[in-house]
Amino acid sequence: MATSATIDVSSLTKLGVDVFGHAGLSGDDARVSTRILVEADMMGLHTHGVVRIPAYTNRLRSGGVDPQAAIHVDKRAPSLAVVDGANGLGTVVASKALDAALAMVSETGIAYVGCKNSNHFGALAPYALQACDAGYVFAGGTNASTTMAPWGGKEARMGNNPLCIAAPCSDGAHFILDMAMSVAARGKIRAAHGSGDPIPEGWALDASGNPTTDAGDALAGFLLPFGAYKGSGLAMAVDILSGVLSGARFLTDVSSWSEEPDAPSGVGHFFVLLDPVKMLGPDGFAAAMDRFKHIVLTAPPAQSATPVLFPGQREQERRRAAMGDGVVLPADLLASIRRLARGPA
Amino acid sequence: MATSATIDVSSLTKLGVDVFGHAGLSGDDARVSTRILVEADMMGLHTHGVVRIPAYTNRLRSGGVDPQAAIHVDKRAPSLAVVDGANGLGTVVASKALDAALAMVSETGIAYVGCKNSNHFGALAPYALQACDAGYVFAGGTNASTTMAPWGGKEARMGNNPLCIAAPCSDGAHFILDMAMSVAARGKIRAAHGSGDPIPEGWALDASGNPTTDAGDALAGFLLPFGAYKGSGLAMAVDILSGVLSGARFLTDVSSWSEEPDAPSGVGHFFVLLDPVKMLGPDGFAAAMDRFKHIVLTAPPAQSATPVLFPGQREQERRRAAMGDGVVLPADLLASIRRLARGPA
Repeated sequence: MATSATIDVSSLTKLGVDVFGHAGLSGDDARVSTRILVEADMMGLHTHGVVRIPAYTNRLRSGGVDPQAAIHVDKRAPSLAVVDGANGLGTVVASKALDAALAMVSETGIAYVGCKNSNHFGALAPYALQACDAGYVFAGGTNASTTMAPWGGKEARMGNNPLCIAAPCSDGAHFILDMAMSVAARGKIRAAHGSGDPIPEGWALDASGNPTTDAGDALAGFLLPFGAYKGSGLAMAVDILSGVLSGARFLTDVSSWSEEPDAPSGVGHFFVLLDPVKMLGPDGFAAAMDRFKHIVLTAPPAQSATPVLFPGQREQERRRAAMGDGVVLPADLLASIRRLARGPA
Repeated sequence: MATSATIDVSSLTKLGVDVFGHAGLSGDDARVSTRILVEADMMGLHTHGVVRIPAYTNRLRSGGVDPQAAIHVDKRAPSLAVVDGANGLGTVVASKALDAALAMVSETGIAYVGCKNSNHFGALAPYALQACDAGYVFAGGTNASTTMAPWGGKEARMGNNPLCIAAPCSDGAHFILDMAMSVAARGKIRAAHGSGDPIPEGWALDASGNPTTDAGDALAGFLLPFGAYKGSGLAMAVDILSGVLSGARFLTDVSSWSEEPDAPSGVGHFFVLLDPVKMLGPDGFAAAMDRFKHIVLTAPPAQSATPVLFPGQREQERRRAAMGDGVVLPADLLASIRRLARGPA
């Protein structure tokens, strides 16, 4: 078992900012990118946390991602904008897109921003949290390189395109539904492959499009969407909203950054913000969400030991705990981040 | 087996308009309501088609729904509106909401309309089709009376809240993903119960929250969401967008119109329209969607006999066929619609 190490949030943040600074990002961009990744670790979403720092750094240094990208916001209508990421880091592009949406939503009540020429932007939940803390209902998503066949197909044609829908709650513990479109994450199949274990039925198909419980065959094949044609259709819908509408690449045109680390991914994202106070007044929405949460959380559990959860509850509880207790990371990951933070040898 | 009868679309439409006229609707409202239901039958969505006419009529006559409702559109911001349905027929309320969204989207590029004090509005796909034919990207949903427990719970607290996401294609066969949040529709469980058959595992829980394959126990219990916590969370998200944001009832506050046919349901809906031409120009979006559809439809099928489908493809193929061939309905349903069309005895 890998040794783990605990580090407090401000120390981890300082390391991240130093790493990204050495990789050529401005101070602001380094801070934004670090915050997005550290927030994911605080929420327990470790696959989208600082574990990405070494790969992000490699891509910034190899020219696969431009640390000084001239990101451009093009307002297309009072409530619409396109952000051309100019092959910048996804965290930086997405943060500028969220800022653009925040500027428009206060005028018109709802705003959509699409991003093109972008790259991996971490997890969606940190962006959703920022929007909810500012008082807005949030929807966001991104496309990704292909890991899934459309339902009924046997060739990878779409990504595991995550979708997040979120709404603010007055107690600060927001509704945050953040989900990818596969039954199980590819990382879980990689872990099973590493330990020589089979995977459950229904997770994946082999390269011929047949169901498999062999982790190796699954890695050579495709992830299965959750809910059959429903998850498959949702993955396409997220790609239309992220890729098609923003003028980004979509479906098979998105490059894999693990297979082509030196090439732009051409990823597309989208963010929608809606101002609930304009709909219901300052107290109306808060009272309705309070009642909504109460009705969900007082549902009697099927198993008495496992109470019903509000979407995002566990992640936000972990985040609050991490503020005091710090974040637990694999020791070797922390060591490599410390090395990168010292700068090029 | 029930006898079936074929009727052409214009004759069926005339019957529907007559029924709704006798039930007190204006000519325009009768035409709109009939169109929504007949479109569903044309698409093969018979559970949401003219089969609803007798129940809608009962509710209009008993005072459960107001045929002369003073529906009010309240614009809350340049891109936001609330429609107070004043307990009108859902088809009429939703159509006025879609009109309000169409008026706003041409100005700002995206528009959200929430509906409160509404009732059952048929299927989502006909509204999506109308929006796509007008050139807009569409998202819509509705809440409903409770049939599902939140994931991990054993008491019904939310509806099977359908969500539809759609985007226009230049060949007129649009991307239309229209899905409810349960693994299987309650109607399928009722059918199994009627024929004495068991239901597959994973469709439903019994009243104690335990998995069941007994159709009767399932009807006394709850539908299971597709994708476990993902479908459960999506059902909540749709209710926030439909019910909470519009000021409608939500979750357990929505009345069941089968159990309380004389009472307002208080249902909430939402519609979002987005103008893709403002994002990508008149040709850019069409070309991108053409390529998107081509990539999906050329995916090699896992089973050679069943090609990969584009979401909504089958429904739109059926609709085009129904324009020439008419609609096949149960003979007794058609007989009762004919009786209602002759007016009160």
